[in-house]
Amino acid sequence: MSEGPKFKRVVVVGLGLLGGSVALALKRRKLARRVVGLGRDRGRLRPALDAGLVDEISVKAEGAAGADLIVLCGPFQQFERQLKALAPVAPEGCLVTDVGSVKGPLVARWHQAAGPLRFVASHPMAGGEKTGWRNARADMFEGAACLITPLTGTRRDAVLAIGRFWQALGAQVSLTSPQDHDRLIGRVSHLPHAAAFALAAAEAADGRIVDFAWAGKGWRDTTRVAASDEALWADIFLHHPKALQQGLRNLERESARLRALLQAGRPRPLRAFLRKASKFRRAAGEQEP
Amino acid sequence: MSEGPKFKRVVVVGLGLLGGSVALALKRRKLARRVVGLGRDRGRLRPALDAGLVDEISVKAEGAAGADLIVLCGPFQQFERQLKALAPVAPEGCLVTDVGSVKGPLVARWHQAAGPLRFVASHPMAGGEKTGWRNARADMFEGAACLITPLTGTRRDAVLAIGRFWQALGAQVSLTSPQDHDRLIGRVSHLPHAAAFALAAAEAADGRIVDFAWAGKGWRDTTRVAASDEALWADIFLHHPKALQQGLRNLERESARLRALLQAGRPRPLRAFLRKASKFRRAAGEQEP
Repeated sequence: MSEGPKFKRVVVVGLGLLGGSVALALKRRKLARRVVGLGRDRGRLRPALDAGLVDEISVKAEGAAGADLIVLCGPFQQFERQLKALAPVAPEGCLVTDVGSVKGPLVARWHQAAGPLRFVASHPMAGGEKTGWRNARADMFEGAACLITPLTGTRRDAVLAIGRFWQALGAQVSLTSPQDHDRLIGRVSHLPHAAAFALAAAEAADGRIVDFAWAGKGWRDTTRVAASDEALWADIFLHHPKALQQGLRNLERESARLRALLQAGRPRPLRAFLRKASKFRRAAGEQEP
Repeated sequence: MSEGPKFKRVVVVGLGLLGGSVALALKRRKLARRVVGLGRDRGRLRPALDAGLVDEISVKAEGAAGADLIVLCGPFQQFERQLKALAPVAPEGCLVTDVGSVKGPLVARWHQAAGPLRFVASHPMAGGEKTGWRNARADMFEGAACLITPLTGTRRDAVLAIGRFWQALGAQVSLTSPQDHDRLIGRVSHLPHAAAFALAAAEAADGRIVDFAWAGKGWRDTTRVAASDEALWADIFLHHPKALQQGLRNLERESARLRALLQAGRPRPLRAFLRKASKFRRAAGEQEP
């Protein structure tokens, strides 16, 4: 493990699960002299300060004065507004990145809003269905994949610096375009989340009472992410509704195929269907970090 | 933790993931003086003996001579045949149970086949997508739910003894009828497995190449059980095709509902849909062991 970059003053905007984990990881690894938690509600920031998660809290953009790194960890719809507010306050050339799970055309707008700050969009693939900084973990980004999505005009020194920042938190960093990012994440994250929500919704709609104390790995794993924050996921899903609709149509088609095989009742073609799925899942599993 | 029952000679029929774990747990907890691995292929049993998983191996029903407990851990379709072969060999009154994930009308046939042996059907909710005794774990049944499904005529002393056996391995034991067991398991296990297979099949059918090194928790959790053994699951699915077909139809209906909400593009009703699913999943999660 290399020493990693040293920051003087890191501002974490939005102290939720990911923001809290960034703060915790920075402190635990001694990568920042001072970590500032920036939010809208002092009453909600205060306990994080008291808990030692951050060294300072602020409810104003002015908290970013003197910063050399800003990490946007709130809802991605607020990034543009936040960047416009931070741009006149933070030092020119201050590094800025985010943890947003959608990119695409938004990245160009974020760059514009960031003005003279050195903005580089990124997406560490981490999180969990439990929200809030109280569930934050210093090892949240260890071994996690992190996609950095620069534009062609993004400053190379900034891209490298943000890459080193995530690497210092333990992430495996790669570069891709904002468009390729969204195509990829639509399949490996948005569709499975939507499928889990649909399965949980199917159970919720079933009037018969079931004691889920009996649930095994099948139910627990397959629906786990359906416990995620609905407001966050509604926003993510609506960012790319077309791709997700296609994914769900594919799921319905395969489910109908499976039903037809059950109806036919012959083991051999059913096994062949399951084998294809199983082989694919195992091969994908071998690629996982 | 109580001392648990002591067995003189336990015969584990079928040394796979679950059979291996039963053997390992018995030895680790010193609950059996001798554990016998019974299977069809000496060449495949031999390494388990060499590894110390069992004290003895046998490819003949005669291996059950002198047993005071037999645990059937192979495919459930073989139970009837196996019980018929074991009944004349094992001592009268020898306890017999199984780990099969389907019950229903089969239980009565197993009782009949077991003749003078004291058979009690059970289903410990444990396992994993990795098969074979090499993946066995001594703590496989710790904290796992275990359903025991006696018939009205099943001897009470045998039910209690089998209950104590699973409790000694760490499981949480409850009683239910074979029919209620199948209704319950159809929802908390078979449907989620089928949904995971359908989702993995949808990805497998998608021609576009995706690097699953980027997959996060969403994909990993939601499809994890799709890596399970396809022959086992084809058999399980075909045991109750009607209930599973209805479950898959429900999944397709909710997926189509989610698509319609994406099409409409309004955050509020989409959030309401996701919230219902999310609330249900969280509440179910609180019931989990």
